[in-house]
Amino acid sequence: MKPRATCCCPLLFTVTILGSGDFSRALALRLLRGGFHVVVGSRSPKQAALCFPHVVDVTHYEDAVGKTSIVFLAIRREHYSVLWDLKHLLEGKIVVDVSNNRRVKQYPESNAEYLSSLLPSCTVVKGFNVISAWAMQQSYPRTGLDVYICSDSVSARQQIMELARLLHFRPVDMGPLSSSRDIENMPLRLFPGWRGPVLAAVALSIFFFSYSFVRDVIHPYVKSKQSDFYKIPMEVVNRTLPSVAITLLALLFYGTKYRQFPSWLEGWLRSRKQLGLLSFFLAAVHVLYSLCLPMRRSERYLLLNTEEVWRVEMYVSFGVMSLGLLSLLAVTSLPSVHSALNWREFSFIQSTLGYIALLIATLHGLLFGWRRAFQWDAYRFYLPPSFVPALALPVCVVLGKLLLLLPCLARRLHLIRRGQDSRRSGPSRLEPVGAAVSPERVTIM
Amino acid sequence: MKPRATCCCPLLFTVTILGSGDFSRALALRLLRGGFHVVVGSRSPKQAALCFPHVVDVTHYEDAVGKTSIVFLAIRREHYSVLWDLKHLLEGKIVVDVSNNRRVKQYPESNAEYLSSLLPSCTVVKGFNVISAWAMQQSYPRTGLDVYICSDSVSARQQIMELARLLHFRPVDMGPLSSSRDIENMPLRLFPGWRGPVLAAVALSIFFFSYSFVRDVIHPYVKSKQSDFYKIPMEVVNRTLPSVAITLLALLFYGTKYRQFPSWLEGWLRSRKQLGLLSFFLAAVHVLYSLCLPMRRSERYLLLNTEEVWRVEMYVSFGVMSLGLLSLLAVTSLPSVHSALNWREFSFIQSTLGYIALLIATLHGLLFGWRRAFQWDAYRFYLPPSFVPALALPVCVVLGKLLLLLPCLARRLHLIRRGQDSRRSGPSRLEPVGAAVSPERVTIM
Amino acid sequence: MKPRATCCCPLLFTVTILGSGDFSRALALRLLRGGFHVVVGSRSPKQAALCFPHVVDVTHYEDAVGKTSIVFLAIRREHYSVLWDLKHLLEGKIVVDVSNNRRVKQYPESNAEYLSSLLPSCTVVKGFNVISAWAMQQSYPRTGLDVYICSDSVSARQQIMELARLLHFRPVDMGPLSSSRDIENMPLRLFPGWRGPVLAAVALSIFFFSYSFVRDVIHPYVKSKQSDFYKIPMEVVNRTLPSVAITLLALLFYGTKYRQFPSWLEGWLRSRKQLGLLSFFLAAVHVLYSLCLPMRRSERYLLLNTEEVWRVEMYVSFGVMSLGLLSLLAVTSLPSVHSALNWREFSFIQSTLGYIALLIATLHGLLFGWRRAFQWDAYRFYLPPSFVPALALPVCVVLGKLLLLLPCLARRLHLIRRGQDSRRSGPSRLEPVGAAVSPERVTIM
Repeated sequence: MKPRATCCCPLLFTVTILGSGDFSRALALRLLRGGFHVVVGSRSPKQAALCFPHVVDVTHYEDAVGKTSIVFLAIRREHYSVLWDLKHLLEGKIVVDVSNNRRVKQYPESNAEYLSSLLPSCTVVKGFNVISAWAMQQSYPRTGLDVYICSDSVSARQQIMELARLLHFRPVDMGPLSSSRDIENMPLRLFPGWRGPVLAAVALSIFFFSYSFVRDVIHPYVKSKQSDFYKIPMEVVNRTLPSVAITLLALLFYGTKYRQFPSWLEGWLRSRKQLGLLSFFLAAVHVLYSLCLPMRRSERYLLLNTEEVWRVEMYVSFGVMSLGLLSLLAVTSLPSVHSALNWREFSFIQSTLGYIALLIATLHGLLFGWRRAFQWDAYRFYLPPSFVPALALPVCVVLGKLLLLLPCLARRLHLIRRGQDSRRSGPSRLEPVGAAVSPERVTIM
Repeated sequence: MKPRATCCCPLLFTVTILGSGDFSRALALRLLRGGFHVVVGSRSPKQAALCFPHVVDVTHYEDAVGKTSIVFLAIRREHYSVLWDLKHLLEGKIVVDVSNNRRVKQYPESNAEYLSSLLPSCTVVKGFNVISAWAMQQSYPRTGLDVYICSDSVSARQQIMELARLLHFRPVDMGPLSSSRDIENMPLRLFPGWRGPVLAAVALSIFFFSYSFVRDVIHPYVKSKQSDFYKIPMEVVNRTLPSVAITLLALLFYGTKYRQFPSWLEGWLRSRKQLGLLSFFLAAVHVLYSLCLPMRRSERYLLLNTEEVWRVEMYVSFGVMSLGLLSLLAVTSLPSVHSALNWREFSFIQSTLGYIALLIATLHGLLFGWRRAFQWDAYRFYLPPSFVPALALPVCVVLGKLLLLLPCLARRLHLIRRGQDSRRSGPSRLEPVGAAVSPERVTIM
Repeated sequence: MKPRATCCCPLLFTVTILGSGDFSRALALRLLRGGFHVVVGSRSPKQAALCFPHVVDVTHYEDAVGKTSIVFLAIRREHYSVLWDLKHLLEGKIVVDVSNNRRVKQYPESNAEYLSSLLPSCTVVKGFNVISAWAMQQSYPRTGLDVYICSDSVSARQQIMELARLLHFRPVDMGPLSSSRDIENMPLRLFPGWRGPVLAAVALSIFFFSYSFVRDVIHPYVKSKQSDFYKIPMEVVNRTLPSVAITLLALLFYGTKYRQFPSWLEGWLRSRKQLGLLSFFLAAVHVLYSLCLPMRRSERYLLLNTEEVWRVEMYVSFGVMSLGLLSLLAVTSLPSVHSALNWREFSFIQSTLGYIALLIATLHGLLFGWRRAFQWDAYRFYLPPSFVPALALPVCVVLGKLLLLLPCLARRLHLIRRGQDSRRSGPSRLEPVGAAVSPERVTIM
């Protein structure tokens, strides 16, 4: 029963998956493409069978478990209780736990260790949990994804690593099952190395913003009742940005001289990169703001009423901000950056920040156009100003998304999704594994 | 005859290559460096031997085939007929087909499958066709290149995968020989994922450009005979860019809410990245245009004759366009982006777009300098204005390339190349494999 | 004694490291994490033991060597003489040489070949020298680092490659021990492919700068005693940049048409990328300068005294330069670029260029603020202008670093470091291996 051998006549080698959620379906597709025969165990096989290709054998738990020596467990931890009845059938088999939790330290021990205590007669292997259901069913990617695998049995670990290799992943041997704690935390990370530098940048921004606000806005107002509040979106911001940028750059080189090797270098080199990147980003945005100054001034020379000044300051400012956000999206699209992020981080940048970029870009366009959409003299050949057709779709999308974020609708949508899931998998307590990092979450926003 | 074992005493292990073109030479060099002994089979061994290092044994087909159990076939599909005479000699051997076609679906079945039907007594393995002759002879790259390998015989597949590993490639097991259809299409791809998003961007650009053209140029002309045609290169373009950018960004978030998992997410996530990147690129160019407005205006204040206005608008516009194209070149120079592109895609960006960038940058310089090269008062100490020496080489290169693109010259050059090839490999019908993706193509342009 | 087998019960497998420097400590930590038992041999075990975790067995050379069949040699070449006494103990063992030299071609033969001649009864393997002590002790990186391994014994090479794999590196088989010359030069490279293109860019820059300097500054001065020297930092530079950029772009396409395949394509494609990137970088900086022109002019309209003109020209110029340098830092932070650089190259960009960027950015800020820090009317609510708090830390760091670069202090600091090392490792001649590329060097600057 060596997987390498099964590669020769792969259709003879069968793998069982317990659970019929999204991850189970994606894994089944991947296994089929790798030449394996797949058996899926489900509480309600008839319903579940509709979601799987015909060559997959969807059956009851007991049947499914009996057919193979490798069993993938695509069931949430909350439903591990269903395994009690299968205990004797699973004896001596390799059980691969692919589950994730919803947050770090949700349970005292890792899911895999808990499973191992439930099924002492099985060999539990942890793995594949860092792969999202979507990545799982992608066809032959050009660069293999890392899959972290651990188990107390070396031979079981090596079998599953070989299987991962046959599915075109890059297995990484993580040693004993106790490593599953680290492995289960991997998909839950959200830029751990950036927390310190970002907090430093935010604190410095607040300080320099307040400083400049007091000096450049409050002082003229107090002393000479001069209302310079329009300076906030551009001038005050453009004083804050370079101040923070240069301070972060200085921090990068500060205080790294006399301490001993391991601790400081570790910490220094870790946050160095982030400090440098933040500094570059803020400096670049500062340059953009500075370059926009003459554009804005030249306009201010002609029109001196306060509303217009505010409008121009705001739309230039929003334009710079949305380009800054879009550039983050562009950077995370680079293959090497992309592959260094986990799903949660990637979706945060691409989805959350992307949506905020769209929102700000739309505001930028609306402020640029302002009232001209409603002024007859702005119409030529009955055609509205160009910003009107350009903003038609963006405004609809922004409004649509905002609507879905309203508490009443958001909850209802959540219930519909839940319902959909339960309808699909019947009255079973089985649910798709890894929902905490599932791509579905992303689309709500 | 395990390749792993040959690694111990690699000089004892011999590999035959049939064909003596560029790819054959490159493969021979790589094999030599990997410690193999190489025999090359050629129709005219004496002539061909001049192109190979001395340690390579260049001989007749029959001799070459007899000496080894692994035969690389570096011959075009059109010349497979020469294999008829070798049929009995090849019996039982592993024949590795490295050929590519010139376009997708040129033949009903893949080259490897056709070869397998011609030589039923051989074990045909498909592989190495995604590697260009140039990449093949690069010395130890820091990151391994993927090599896709398929065959109906598992042991042959594994032997060739091991061989690929010894040559410092990263073999990817693609299963049965029928996968060769996919593998042969790989080097012919030209940004398949970008077609939809780029078409959307072009269609939107045409729409918004026409819209703004009618409103901002045609309308003043019709209504008040005001000739604002100089607005085309900058103002109309700078209205089109943000409109397209924001619409693409909105499309990225549009309509991805209610459909079922696999289909939409697949399609959405695939074009998401491209939509986002296009949107960023257009937005960045829009910002550049906007930042150039005051520069241009300040000049327009001083000089109001139409020719000067046109000149300034055009040279600023060309400058922005050439920076935009150069930035694409810079992005594809990143290792991870580079390695995700095939040779055809890489050469399209680096060579075709690079040349267009040079052309536009030269026009930018010429329009900036304009007539000053011929005005005596622009000369100081008899030195022409600085744009003259700066543009000397670029103008020569641009003219030289344009000359070679003239139909009469282009055909002649093509014939010379062909002739060169045939002169080199003698009267044989043997030709270098993979010319469709050969680096030589790039340099014509 | 197969390493693969030791993976099953890794704690039973022991590895010895001779030497107790930084690299030895880092390697020991990595081996411990990989499940190995580690014995360290030191001249003064008691002192050395303080630097290692308790589970590491720090003992005398003779003891340490006797315990295992794999011995890592973390000793400088100058101290190989200590091995004479251990010769009989090392007989038949695998000795892994991880040493580096301080410069290319320091010795006629490679360290590993020299070692092999000293210890003919051992199997010498070269490897791990491209990994810095810092990278060595990083915990499970997401992407494996390449480790180049060579040896005349294939089985020894494969054992060490397997060991590298267990430590989560990506071993690359480099064949016989003679490859150690290449491998030892790897960490000493400093952008070898960039030398030609950068020299071309520098030569062209000097030419175009002088040309423009003579025409635009010297000529008006000679002819009409007009002092236009303030044009140097911006106008002359902004004429040099596009001239060099477009000439490099033209060079990229020049003279690659008629020569034969291997030589030209190799050279062309190699410097193509660098020429293109340099051209892009210069063009981008040129755009920034051009965009800054109106900003500067608008200021010049108001204030026409020479000092102010100089100040504005200089601070804008410094701002552009520091953003240009910061963008290089940002690019080398990309994972794929980062992993293509060796430690020396990475530290040159991140540390040397980073510090120059900080210096220039500080000058930019100081020139922007100028005398306002000392003018009472610039204070509002007793708050100094915002550039004062923003520059507080940067000025301190810059001054601190400059102070450490003073010859007297630099030498003293160097001695302190040396002393620290010798104090730690006692009166032994043992020193940390790889100091030429050690992270410590970086921080001096």
